[in-house]
Amino acid sequence: MPELDSPPASAGDSEWDLSPVFSPSSIAMVGASDNPMSIGGMVYGNLKRDFPGQLYPINVVRKVVQGDVAYSDVADLPEPVDLLIVMVEASLVPGILARAADAGHRSAYVLSSGFSEAGAGGIALQAQLTDLATTRNFPIVGPNCIGFLNSFGSVMANFSLAPTADRPRPGSVALISQSGGFGSYILNRAVRGGLGIGYFASTGNEAGVTVADVLRHFVEQPQIKVIAMFAEAIRNPRQFLAAADRARELDKVIISVTPGASETVARAVMSHTASIVGSRDVYDAVCAQRGVLRVDSIDELVDYASILQAGKRMRGRRIGVITTSGGAGVLVSGAAGDYGLDVPQLGPERQAQIAALLPAFASSTNPVDTTAGIGEMAPDTYEKIARALLDDDSIDALVPLAWHSVSRDADVLVALESEYDKPIAPVVTIDADALAHRMPAFADPTRAVRALTAVTAVSGRPRRRTADGIVDEARAAAARDLLRPSMAHGFALESTAKDVLRLYGMPTAEERVVSDPDAGSKAAAELGGPVALKILSYRLPHKSDQGGVVLNRQGDDEVRRGCSELLEYMAAKGVPVEGVLVQQMAKGSLELAVGMYRDSVFGPIVTAGLGGRLIELTADAVLLPAPFGRDEALAAADRIAGGRITHAQRGMSESALGELAAAMTAVGLVAVDHPEIDSIDVNPLIPTDRGLVAVDALFTWAKPPTAAHD
Amino acid sequence: MPELDSPPASAGDSEWDLSPVFSPSSIAMVGASDNPMSIGGMVYGNLKRDFPGQLYPINVVRKVVQGDVAYSDVADLPEPVDLLIVMVEASLVPGILARAADAGHRSAYVLSSGFSEAGAGGIALQAQLTDLATTRNFPIVGPNCIGFLNSFGSVMANFSLAPTADRPRPGSVALISQSGGFGSYILNRAVRGGLGIGYFASTGNEAGVTVADVLRHFVEQPQIKVIAMFAEAIRNPRQFLAAADRARELDKVIISVTPGASETVARAVMSHTASIVGSRDVYDAVCAQRGVLRVDSIDELVDYASILQAGKRMRGRRIGVITTSGGAGVLVSGAAGDYGLDVPQLGPERQAQIAALLPAFASSTNPVDTTAGIGEMAPDTYEKIARALLDDDSIDALVPLAWHSVSRDADVLVALESEYDKPIAPVVTIDADALAHRMPAFADPTRAVRALTAVTAVSGRPRRRTADGIVDEARAAAARDLLRPSMAHGFALESTAKDVLRLYGMPTAEERVVSDPDAGSKAAAELGGPVALKILSYRLPHKSDQGGVVLNRQGDDEVRRGCSELLEYMAAKGVPVEGVLVQQMAKGSLELAVGMYRDSVFGPIVTAGLGGRLIELTADAVLLPAPFGRDEALAAADRIAGGRITHAQRGMSESALGELAAAMTAVGLVAVDHPEIDSIDVNPLIPTDRGLVAVDALFTWAKPPTAAHD
Repeated sequence: MPELDSPPASAGDSEWDLSPVFSPSSIAMVGASDNPMSIGGMVYGNLKRDFPGQLYPINVVRKVVQGDVAYSDVADLPEPVDLLIVMVEASLVPGILARAADAGHRSAYVLSSGFSEAGAGGIALQAQLTDLATTRNFPIVGPNCIGFLNSFGSVMANFSLAPTADRPRPGSVALISQSGGFGSYILNRAVRGGLGIGYFASTGNEAGVTVADVLRHFVEQPQIKVIAMFAEAIRNPRQFLAAADRARELDKVIISVTPGASETVARAVMSHTASIVGSRDVYDAVCAQRGVLRVDSIDELVDYASILQAGKRMRGRRIGVITTSGGAGVLVSGAAGDYGLDVPQLGPERQAQIAALLPAFASSTNPVDTTAGIGEMAPDTYEKIARALLDDDSIDALVPLAWHSVSRDADVLVALESEYDKPIAPVVTIDADALAHRMPAFADPTRAVRALTAVTAVSGRPRRRTADGIVDEARAAAARDLLRPSMAHGFALESTAKDVLRLYGMPTAEERVVSDPDAGSKAAAELGGPVALKILSYRLPHKSDQGGVVLNRQGDDEVRRGCSELLEYMAAKGVPVEGVLVQQMAKGSLELAVGMYRDSVFGPIVTAGLGGRLIELTADAVLLPAPFGRDEALAAADRIAGGRITHAQRGMSESALGELAAAMTAVGLVAVDHPEIDSIDVNPLIPTDRGLVAVDALFTWAKPPTAAHD
Repeated sequence: MPELDSPPASAGDSEWDLSPVFSPSSIAMVGASDNPMSIGGMVYGNLKRDFPGQLYPINVVRKVVQGDVAYSDVADLPEPVDLLIVMVEASLVPGILARAADAGHRSAYVLSSGFSEAGAGGIALQAQLTDLATTRNFPIVGPNCIGFLNSFGSVMANFSLAPTADRPRPGSVALISQSGGFGSYILNRAVRGGLGIGYFASTGNEAGVTVADVLRHFVEQPQIKVIAMFAEAIRNPRQFLAAADRARELDKVIISVTPGASETVARAVMSHTASIVGSRDVYDAVCAQRGVLRVDSIDELVDYASILQAGKRMRGRRIGVITTSGGAGVLVSGAAGDYGLDVPQLGPERQAQIAALLPAFASSTNPVDTTAGIGEMAPDTYEKIARALLDDDSIDALVPLAWHSVSRDADVLVALESEYDKPIAPVVTIDADALAHRMPAFADPTRAVRALTAVTAVSGRPRRRTADGIVDEARAAAARDLLRPSMAHGFALESTAKDVLRLYGMPTAEERVVSDPDAGSKAAAELGGPVALKILSYRLPHKSDQGGVVLNRQGDDEVRRGCSELLEYMAAKGVPVEGVLVQQMAKGSLELAVGMYRDSVFGPIVTAGLGGRLIELTADAVLLPAPFGRDEALAAADRIAGGRITHAQRGMSESALGELAAAMTAVGLVAVDHPEIDSIDVNPLIPTDRGLVAVDALFTWAKPPTAAHD
């Protein structure tokens, strides 16, 4: 039993080989039943009907189950099997699985309920499964789930479908759901919506294998192009991120349906302000960064998977529209505008080609409006127009109106869908569902257009690059030396924070730390121009609110007097002082802020947005999970305030934007190198004539864990 | 022929009596055909099958049409009829309608195409219809449309349905579409979605009767509770607004599907800035103000009409959820959060009542999660839980999960739907369409929740009140006197603009107009504190960009010098000067702006938002069509920057918000009283310790119409 020697691991970090689970060549079912109405009977019936490999029923009472010779225990099987399906009382499961691992069976899918969802006893039982899975490196999916299906391998190991039910059409879509009931619903919607389903899996309570593990496995399957998942929690974020990156590498698409804002945990981004981002914002940012499509509804999931299942991509955002109704053409064009797609004018030759097919009062531009008289035109008019648009280099996808799913037009579209590699998203005004089983089809113009945005979102995704020079051990060590004196306190002094940030490439204000008015005056003279004077004290994390800052002092007298007054005021209040920061004043009309906080799931999240008072008024900080590369930082910086900080009349220059990206990158690198820093707040950052300048900065430390006897 | 004596009117201002059109007791059809495949045959067949009143076919060739005695012309009918349906060649239509009006027939619905959609000749023909409709006060609907239906009166005057087709279920929903083809599509979707259709009307090219006229008519029909409209253009905005107000008065709901941003015409809100709002924003603002529900898609239209057709309302935003799957419960709760609905905790007694019905591991709070084991519980468990939630005062609507539309649970919901006056929006995971024909039903949790937001949007709408004291002729006359000297120029001087705004209740900076440095110094002394000095000149609309402003002058010397310098600079440049404005400086940390521009359809639109440089960064000005009352202004002011100017940590006080509302009201009243003012820009408005202060203001005049021989 070499598994016992394996080092213990948390289930969340395991990398299971899930091939025995999802592509088994032999299966045994514990709890296989002769009663076709029981779950054990239904699942065994499903397996028996389709599965071409070796199949063993296990039943402690019966010798024969559904006509097959039954075994009484997993230890009695004539060979080790790839997969055990388990549907017996919860209390029996840990023993069975332990014997299964002993017997050399390779994996288990536990459908039984009565585990963590059923109170203390169940939680203890489930912990035994987790322990078994990790210590024995034995992949366990479930418990408390409805099973899975693999259309390619004809494995129908679930009770979502009855043994007599039609099987889903095999295809390039995989579905994963933690929730069994909801998974079954999604599967039903997907089948009705015309999706070709390669795999479906429910992961239930996730004692061992998580949704992210299954995701990672499905991404690698060659027939799969789209994986849609419903998850209430990502228990294994590293695996999720790896799967997302791998999907992008293979140009496959992950679609995530994620519950909305009621999950949102209020969280202050920056300690000075009331700005809030919730964990869903973080998940959105992670998905955006990793190329995962986030959707809010099952409609979107089905629509996106439908248009993506053929694996087509778009070179641009330009759609051609064929309509028989001006109204529908307007609605499609309007929706295109709303969703950021273009409905470009056609070139004169193309227009002439189309015009020759249509009566004078029709419209040969884009949208091409044949008018309702299309029925009286030459029979191939519709096809010729569709081809003219699909052949046009200025068109990346086609949105044709088709009146009825059962029509010559519909047949034409099905033929063109397989001939052309540009997506076709027909709007079918009567019975779109029927056409949806032959090709993507939509009952709603808005949804047809929205579906194409899913294609543009995944077209031309560059391979992700994280920060250059992310590993710089010398820099990290130098920063640790700078930070060490602060570690005994709740936060780092502003001067320390800025020294560290400068190491990582953050542009900061010119400044000196002094200890008395003489040195202050000298430092101010060296810096030139008006200066700010700031008390450095571990008692003053928010020093400007605490009387520790004076602004705009110039000349020997003013500076000297400012230093004296500050020091005397602090002495009078008994505040211990580490020094006075003498800082060149930064002038600019805009204030920005960059920060960092740690998400409990996805780790360091860098925020950037308008700063100072503006934070409260605009509340649209962008989030970027660290680490990230310069391109991502630039793109994120360009989204601040809806892109208006750069596109506004008097917006930031491109060089200032680059400096802001550098500031974000610096904060991200500090966060990655120094996990002991809990939050970073650089606010304000001011774009000045001499470049971007960080004016204030605060690092806070994670609170030390409370001792047990505190 | 007394109609000829009627004063000519534009079609857009007519108020037709449309009862003869939509509830006729007698109908004649010009172009009724014996060929059932022709449009004339299909429409006549539809009429003949259902219409209980007197029906006459008119056919120039045949003596009998579909078994009925045919007449050869409208002049030959034995009696004047309420409605003529016309489906003959376009060129014949004007003559027929003229004879029809002469013969005393009361209205016409023209289905024929070949009018304005078909080039110059068609445009001329259509102009004849418009002329006839207005000069003879003869209601003409169409041309180029597919007709209408009235389920209550059994009038199937359309070719959307075949004579053999099932009729829509009569009900409280009316549909209106300009586009015929698209209207037919919407009708099909509505019928499939389970809506009860009372009326359907297509208005086509709108030579006479417009979509707004039909809207106005349908709002008054007692059986109608919901009117859904698809319009590419509102040709009769006054009538549209009247219909909206009347619908609100009668607690009926108008739903408008409106094409998106491709229609958007870029338009600068305020002449100083690059901020843009398009006409769709105006339409959105109008709909929000008048209680019209705006939707982007046919899905929303059908969903909203479905949940609204029973006329139910909600007392609050609190929903109860019953689920058999934790995943679905989470998705519903998340969607509720996203859409601003609450899923409140139940009181302890209610929880105990529900807990007694369920096993221990189920959840008796809200969402109530029965678990998938519901099938093994007492048969009335589902109903008892649903009743417990519907009976609860803390619940305003119910979102129950129902597994299959054909089930005991579904039957229970249908019974409860008719018993309770709280809306029920079931999520049906298998075949929701079938249940949708018995009660509102949704395939998608997100859409079920979204539909309820349509109910909350129309629940408890107060009757609309416009500005108190809106008619104040003395004030308007006084303002006209102030404005007169500016009329020869392109804009009003700042001092004039502010004098006018003050008359209407706008709080402005304290200021004096002077003509020389001596008077300037004296004025500054009277005002006290630092002052701004601004050149008043009809050559300087944007004086601060043109060297016409100096800020922060204090004391005799500084003020005198400032005035001299400004005047000398202008004299050197040859700029004629009307005076110097000496203005008390306003100090505050926030800048706001209020403006006005005229929309070509809906007239004066007041804008309010962040001002100064912030306008460019935030771009979320609120729009309010004038006139409006103080309550609307307050509500709009509270939405600026997503509500963050009031709710931010250091936000505006309630009194400042009231002053901002007063400023908006002032601008709206000026716009209404003085149509010659083309735009108003009050920017910045600064909340100071002494209250809100308008610091700068500009009125521009509409450009005089260019003379023909220019």
